[in-house]
Amino acid sequence: MRAIISAMKVSELGEFGLIEQLAKIAYQALSKEAAAGKQLIIGIGDDAAAWHGDAKVELAAADSLIQDVHFTLAMTPWNELGWKALAAGLSDIAAMGGVPKYALVSLALPGDTEVEDVTDLYRGMTQLGQQFDVAIVGGDTSSSPLVIINTTVLGSTKGQNMHILTRSAAKPGDKVAVTGYLGTAAAGLEMLSKKIQIDPEATACFKKAFLQPYPRIAEGQLLVEQGVKTAIDISDGLISDLSHILKASQVSARIEIERVPVHPAVKANFGDKAVALALSGGEDYELLFTASARVVGRVSEKASLPVTVIGDIVADKRGEITLTDREGKPIRLGKTGWEHFATR
Amino acid sequence: MRAIISAMKVSELGEFGLIEQLAKIAYQALSKEAAAGKQLIIGIGDDAAAWHGDAKVELAAADSLIQDVHFTLAMTPWNELGWKALAAGLSDIAAMGGVPKYALVSLALPGDTEVEDVTDLYRGMTQLGQQFDVAIVGGDTSSSPLVIINTTVLGSTKGQNMHILTRSAAKPGDKVAVTGYLGTAAAGLEMLSKKIQIDPEATACFKKAFLQPYPRIAEGQLLVEQGVKTAIDISDGLISDLSHILKASQVSARIEIERVPVHPAVKANFGDKAVALALSGGEDYELLFTASARVVGRVSEKASLPVTVIGDIVADKRGEITLTDREGKPIRLGKTGWEHFATR
Repeated sequence: MRAIISAMKVSELGEFGLIEQLAKIAYQALSKEAAAGKQLIIGIGDDAAAWHGDAKVELAAADSLIQDVHFTLAMTPWNELGWKALAAGLSDIAAMGGVPKYALVSLALPGDTEVEDVTDLYRGMTQLGQQFDVAIVGGDTSSSPLVIINTTVLGSTKGQNMHILTRSAAKPGDKVAVTGYLGTAAAGLEMLSKKIQIDPEATACFKKAFLQPYPRIAEGQLLVEQGVKTAIDISDGLISDLSHILKASQVSARIEIERVPVHPAVKANFGDKAVALALSGGEDYELLFTASARVVGRVSEKASLPVTVIGDIVADKRGEITLTDREGKPIRLGKTGWEHFATR
Repeated sequence: MRAIISAMKVSELGEFGLIEQLAKIAYQALSKEAAAGKQLIIGIGDDAAAWHGDAKVELAAADSLIQDVHFTLAMTPWNELGWKALAAGLSDIAAMGGVPKYALVSLALPGDTEVEDVTDLYRGMTQLGQQFDVAIVGGDTSSSPLVIINTTVLGSTKGQNMHILTRSAAKPGDKVAVTGYLGTAAAGLEMLSKKIQIDPEATACFKKAFLQPYPRIAEGQLLVEQGVKTAIDISDGLISDLSHILKASQVSARIEIERVPVHPAVKANFGDKAVALALSGGEDYELLFTASARVVGRVSEKASLPVTVIGDIVADKRGEITLTDREGKPIRLGKTGWEHFATR
C-alpha cells in the first residue's frame, strides 16, 4: 500500500484522497490521554473541527482563496474578494449549526499591490463580518507572487447543550433537503468568464451570488433547533457535497432531478445547462441536510428561505447517488463537483 | 491622508505599515456591544489574538510559509518544512505565555507534488505537535502553482486566573532579556544557501536551528508564573522584534551589544558577521521579554535555558533602540530585521 502511494502525485490521488491520507496521520498522532485528544469531537473531514470547550462546543474552519485557482482579479473586485473569502469560512460554521465569532486572516500579496486594494479587501471582509458580529482579530501578511487569502473562522454552538451538525449522521429513511435555490453562483461565473450578456436583473442576481454569497448562519442554527443532525454547505457542488455526507454516513441517496430547486433566472438564461449548474456548479453556500420528513417539515415551516426535499437516503453503504426522473427511473450523471488536483 | 495612501503600493508602505492600516479597519468595524467585541482582549498587532473564553483566556495565531519567499524546496526537506510551519504558530502562543492545543493546516500544492512528500510534511508537523500534545484537527487543501502552508494554532492560558504576555506592557526601568542563544537559525540559512562547509557539529546545530526550531512553550509559561508581563518571540530578528515591543509600549531601549548571547558556534564560524546574524537574522524563536531585574532574576533561576539580560527599557516614547558598547557609548546599527514588502 505504502509503495503504491509513494509513487503517486497528488493530482492522481485527488483532493479527497489526499485529505484521507492526512487525516490518518493526524489521527494516529493524536494522544487520547492529552486534553486535546480527549475533548476533540471532530477532526479533519467535516466542515469544521469541533471540540468540547469549557462551556459550549467550540468550532474552527479554515479556507484558502488562491489567485488564478479560486478567483481572478479580472473578475473579482477586491471588496468582493474579501467578502467571499470570509463567507466561505462563515458558511463552514453555518454547516455545523454554530455561531461564528472571530476570524484570523492571512494575506499573501505581491509587493506592487495597491494599498487601497488591500484596504478595500479588508472592508469587504468587515462588511460581511459586521452582519454576524464577527470580529477580525489577527492573521499574518507576507509578500508573495500571487494573491492568497487564508481565513480561519472560530465559533461555537449557540448554547451550552446544543448539538452540532455533522456529515456522518444521515440514516436510511431520511429525506434529503436543501435551503434556497441553486445554480446562481455558477451562473455568475459562466456569465463573467464568458462575458455573456443577459438582462440586468439576472446579471445582478448572478453577480451577487458569485461575488457576495450569504452564509446561512441563521438557517444552520434553525436546523439544530429543529433536531436536524446532518448537514454540509454546498461549496463544491450539490453532487460532490452530497457524496461527502453519503461516504461519511455510509449510506446512499436517490435524488429526483426535477425536484432540485434550480433558480428561475438560471433556468431562464441557461436552458439545458441550468440543471448541470445547479448540480455541480458549487459555491452556492446553501445548506444541504438530511432528516426525517417530519423534521424537514418543521424546518420548512420556520425558515425564511424555501426548503426543498430533493430525495431520500437509502440503505446502501457504497455512498452512491442515483439521479432519477419523476417516475423514479435512473438518469446518468455527467461531470461531478469541484475537486482540487483531480485531472479527469 | 487617504489620497496619499491610495496612490501607494504595499512595498512602499511596508508590512508593518500595512498591518497598522488593516488593524484600524478591523477595529472600526468591531461592535463593542456584541460578544466578540466585549470579550476581545487583543486583536491585530500582537503575537496572537486573545479573548475571554468561558473559563480561560483563549489564544489564536496564524502563520504562512510561502515557497521561494519563506523557504525553498532545495534547502528544506518536506518533513522539516512541516515542523517549521507548525513551530512558527506554537512560538506565537509561547510568546503569549499560553498552552497550544489545536492546529488547523491549509495546504496549497502543485498537482505534481508527490503524495509521499505531503505525508512527510504532515509527519513533520505531527512529530512537533506530539511534543506539546497539539492535535491537527482541520484545514483545507487546494491546488496551486506554489507550495503554501498556512497554520492557525489555537490555545489558551494554562489556568483560569493566568495573565497573558503582550507587547505593550514594557516600562522604563525594566531589564530587556532573552532566552537561549541567538544567530543559529540565520547561520543555518547562510550555510545552506551559500553551501558553506563547516565542522559537522556546528553544521548539525545550525541545520536543526534553521529547519526544526523548538518553540519555547515551557519558558513562556515560566515567564507568566514569575510575573513577566511583556514578551515577543524572535521571528523577524532581535532588533525588529524589540522594536515591536517598544512601539507597542511607547518606550525606548538601550542594548549593550556585547551582552547579546550570540551562539558560540556562530561566533566561531562567522567571525565579524556573527553579531549581525544574532541581531537581525530572525527565526531563532527564542523569547525576548522585559521585566524588573528581580523578576528576570527569578526567571533565570528557574529556567532550564540560559536567560541573558541585554539592556534596559528607557523612558522615551519614540520606540528607539540605542546599541551601546561596554562603556555605554552608542554604536550605529546597520540592517534591521526581516520585514515583508520593504524595498529598502
